[in-house]
Amino acid sequence: MKKIEAIVRPEKLTETIKGLKNIGITGFTVSQVVGRGKQKDTKGVYRGKNYNVTLHPKVKLEIVLSDYMVEPTINTIIDSSRTGEEGDGKIYVYPILEAYNIRTGTTDFDIDDLANKED
Amino acid sequence: MKKIEAIVRPEKLTETIKGLKNIGITGFTVSQVVGRGKQKDTKGVYRGKNYNVTLHPKVKLEIVLSDYMVEPTINTIIDSSRTGEEGDGKIYVYPILEAYNIRTGTTDFDIDDLANKED
Amino acid sequence: MKKIEAIVRPEKLTETIKGLKNIGITGFTVSQVVGRGKQKDTKGVYRGKNYNVTLHPKVKLEIVLSDYMVEPTINTIIDSSRTGEEGDGKIYVYPILEAYNIRTGTTDFDIDDLANKED
Ligand SMILES: Nc1ncnc2c1ncn2[C@@H]1O[C@H](COP(=O)(O)OP(=O)(O)OP(=O)(O)O)[C@@H](O)[C@H]1O
Ligand SMILES: Nc1ncnc2c1ncn2[C@@H]1O[C@H](COP(=O)(O)OP(=O)(O)OP(=O)(O)O)[C@@H](O)[C@H]1O
Ligand SMILES: Nc1ncnc2c1ncn2[C@@H]1O[C@H](COP(=O)(O)OP(=O)(O)OP(=O)(O)O)[C@@H](O)[C@H]1O
Ligand SMILES: [Mg+2]
Ligand SMILES: [Mg+2]
Ligand SMILES: [Mg+2]
Repeated sequence: MKKIEAIVRPEKLTETIKGLKNIGITGFTVSQVVGRGKQKDTKGVYRGKNYNVTLHPKVKLEIVLSDYMVEPTINTIIDSSRTGEEGDGKIYVYPILEAYNIRTGTTDFDIDDLANKED
Repeated sequence: MKKIEAIVRPEKLTETIKGLKNIGITGFTVSQVVGRGKQKDTKGVYRGKNYNVTLHPKVKLEIVLSDYMVEPTINTIIDSSRTGEEGDGKIYVYPILEAYNIRTGTTDFDIDDLANKED
Repeated sequence: MKKIEAIVRPEKLTETIKGLKNIGITGFTVSQVVGRGKQKDTKGVYRGKNYNVTLHPKVKLEIVLSDYMVEPTINTIIDSSRTGEEGDGKIYVYPILEAYNIRTGTTDFDIDDLANKED
């Protein structure tokens, strides 16, 4: 089991969620964030007390899923959230050690995860 | 050291915090999120431009703790945040490589973590 | 590749971002959170229905970076966000398995990460 964290443009969230639904991903968590990437402009350079850095609004999409879904999910997020302009965002993959459904109180691993645990 | 991330109903946050305090957990971070789980309804099905997906408000509770506290903490979160209805939420466990207290500038491992490091 | 997550005082965010820029770190994500640390006061003790726990506003700074940048980045965050008073916050380090730039669709590993992969 892995977590995919995607930081995308807010205006691309709906399209990204549609793309995910098309490949069978319906469970995810969304939060509002701000951030910066590589700074190529000369604006905002440090000038003592007047320095002010611009933080761009983004949305963070978090999806916990089975290992075999990682690759298609990354491809879908890139396809549906990409504009080709700077600032399109990032995708990060994290290991997950355990997952539980609170309603059932049971682990949230499905048969595919158990199969994947072998390798 | 691990991080437990619990996505719970906002109306269950206070009770969950009380439950955690009862087992000695007082350090945690809370953020507002929205999300979806498994989609069993037929509402919100894709209909071209009119498609709109409903995102439910939840709170994300993050707790960094010693390995030996993971199991009692998961049990406490399930006991205190569960309603038995769909949408109760999820608990995920992540590995933590290093932890620091900014005030002291020292690592935030306690004696139990050091003991646990042996295994 | 690692993720550093720092939970700092909101009033220390600008200074921390400046410190990071000075060591060449310009990419990061910021979110608003609330939280608590070790509870040493006797206020807010459980009193049945009247119990109310105070959650302090903090900012969460997330930085995905190459392994060799972890140590200088932690030192910089401590130097620039520390007041010496209780509540200064925490720094956590997480493993990252994969990283992608959405605009280019390519992995976001640089030459140093590839070198670090050997060890
Ligand atoms: N190293 C990083 N760590 C954490 N978050 C980051 C990092 N780099 C970028 N982000 C997040 O991703 C958002 C978008 O970054 P952006 O796409 O501009 O990255 P970039 O490396 O500058 O690539 P590009 O050249 O395509 O603009 C930022 O606003 C920030 O929230
Ligand atoms: N796979 C997932 N990845 C990340 N977050 C998720 C995932 N599934 C659910 N969540 C988060 O948990 C919240 C609650 O999900 P929910 O409890 O409805 O899950 P479920 O799998 O549908 O279980 P149930 O059948 O009990 O409703 C969602 O609103 C979302 O924020
Ligand atoms: N165990 C924890 N897990 C997750 N977040 C935590 C934890 N402990 C503290 N935090 C976060 O860090 C913030 C600041 O905590 P704080 O600096 O008061 O920690 P502390 O352990 O009490 O140290 P100090 O004695 O220096 O106050 C909290 O408001 C919370 O958001
Ligand atoms: Mg950029
Ligand atoms: Mg559900
Ligand atoms: Mg404290």
